[in-house]
Amino acid sequence: MENVQIIVEYDGTAYCGWQVQHNGLAIQQVLMDVWEKMTGEKIKLAGSGRTDAGVHAYGQSANFLTGSTIPVEKIPYAWNGNLPPDIRVLEAKIRGSDFHSRFSAKGKVYEYRVLNRAQGSGLRYNRVWHVRQPLDFDRMDRAKEHFIGTHDFTAFSSAKSEATTKVRTVHELVLSKEEEEYVFVIAGNGFLYNMVRIMVGTLVEIGQGKREPESILDLFEGKERRASGITAPPQGLYLKKVIY
Amino acid sequence: MENVQIIVEYDGTAYCGWQVQHNGLAIQQVLMDVWEKMTGEKIKLAGSGRTDAGVHAYGQSANFLTGSTIPVEKIPYAWNGNLPPDIRVLEAKIRGSDFHSRFSAKGKVYEYRVLNRAQGSGLRYNRVWHVRQPLDFDRMDRAKEHFIGTHDFTAFSSAKSEATTKVRTVHELVLSKEEEEYVFVIAGNGFLYNMVRIMVGTLVEIGQGKREPESILDLFEGKERRASGITAPPQGLYLKKVIY
Repeated sequence: MENVQIIVEYDGTAYCGWQVQHNGLAIQQVLMDVWEKMTGEKIKLAGSGRTDAGVHAYGQSANFLTGSTIPVEKIPYAWNGNLPPDIRVLEAKIRGSDFHSRFSAKGKVYEYRVLNRAQGSGLRYNRVWHVRQPLDFDRMDRAKEHFIGTHDFTAFSSAKSEATTKVRTVHELVLSKEEEEYVFVIAGNGFLYNMVRIMVGTLVEIGQGKREPESILDLFEGKERRASGITAPPQGLYLKKVIY
Repeated sequence: MENVQIIVEYDGTAYCGWQVQHNGLAIQQVLMDVWEKMTGEKIKLAGSGRTDAGVHAYGQSANFLTGSTIPVEKIPYAWNGNLPPDIRVLEAKIRGSDFHSRFSAKGKVYEYRVLNRAQGSGLRYNRVWHVRQPLDFDRMDRAKEHFIGTHDFTAFSSAKSEATTKVRTVHELVLSKEEEEYVFVIAGNGFLYNMVRIMVGTLVEIGQGKREPESILDLFEGKERRASGITAPPQGLYLKKVIY
């Protein structure tokens, strides 16, 4: 048996998320079903972490044990020949037996895109969060600095989060503007449930003038989810990369 | 009656194109139907030109005569409240009675996107042309220069083109690379049927080493459609802007 790691790109629009759940079709499930159809082999595909319904990935990472004779460099071609077009396996590599896409991960990089203009986008409506009210770049840029470093992110995680510690390190948070879109790129050692979406929701409220850039320090201190901003919608979020 | 110009963004994936045809649903038709549902008024919406099935627009331009009392600045909000999410009216302006979105146009700007890597894209599969064989930037960059200026584009237009003259002027053709995508931006005074797609198809064949950059000069000379490259698929093409 070989331990194979794959990198997967997907459009999350049509799915209930990465991970198999009771409701709707999961991306993980589609990959496992297609593999079984191709090879007759049932696999257990372990992802680096879940992504919610509507969230996208440029580079989700997953691994599975296989006895298949498909040469590893042919695996993406074989899979993609049978997958729906909104899921693509970009790479496959043989890893050591101790590699686990989730437990071996050293960090992740996410991107979040906010379209800031009067009207929505016919081309990107399930790819961005459409925010009508003008956003102030400088306020958001000042605020985002407070996230960098090691903090208790309790106020920036869903009550559903089951993590035992809410302390995480954000290594980098870059804000840029591409025409009418604000793009947040966030790298960290780990992310709590909904953490990126609540961080972006809070930054957007700061950009709208509804709260102050420095208020983030109070949110770290207070550790109350209800004191922070809204959860930004899923369709603006992309898992870019998992770091090992 | 006011002559109102609108700028429309759309994802062409689900439609038979901009213009009403016997097969499938046209973007023009959806806009007219929704307007009638909203106001009771039947309008004739004239676009700057057709876009084929699967072709997208960031800035299609159209105009129509209306007796509606909706203030012009409210028109995009009203329309977008009733349109499907893949069509968005970005702007509306009152124009003089002699303005016609097609006949008043001085030029157009198109963008074409080619994804050049081994595997396709789960996120952009109906937004780019996926070309597997590696492309040579320098060959395509040298070749594209030959298109700039005024030429007879007979070899770069569909046999279905009914234009009386095939002479057109390309003002600008910029090629850039954004990660794994080659992006062609083409500005000209007018475009024949399939002209951008055949130009890109030919440039890609040059990038693959199947033909020489200088062969474009022979194609202008020979005026034979079958001598030029393939018609690049519709989903990589975007109408960016109509110039007046």
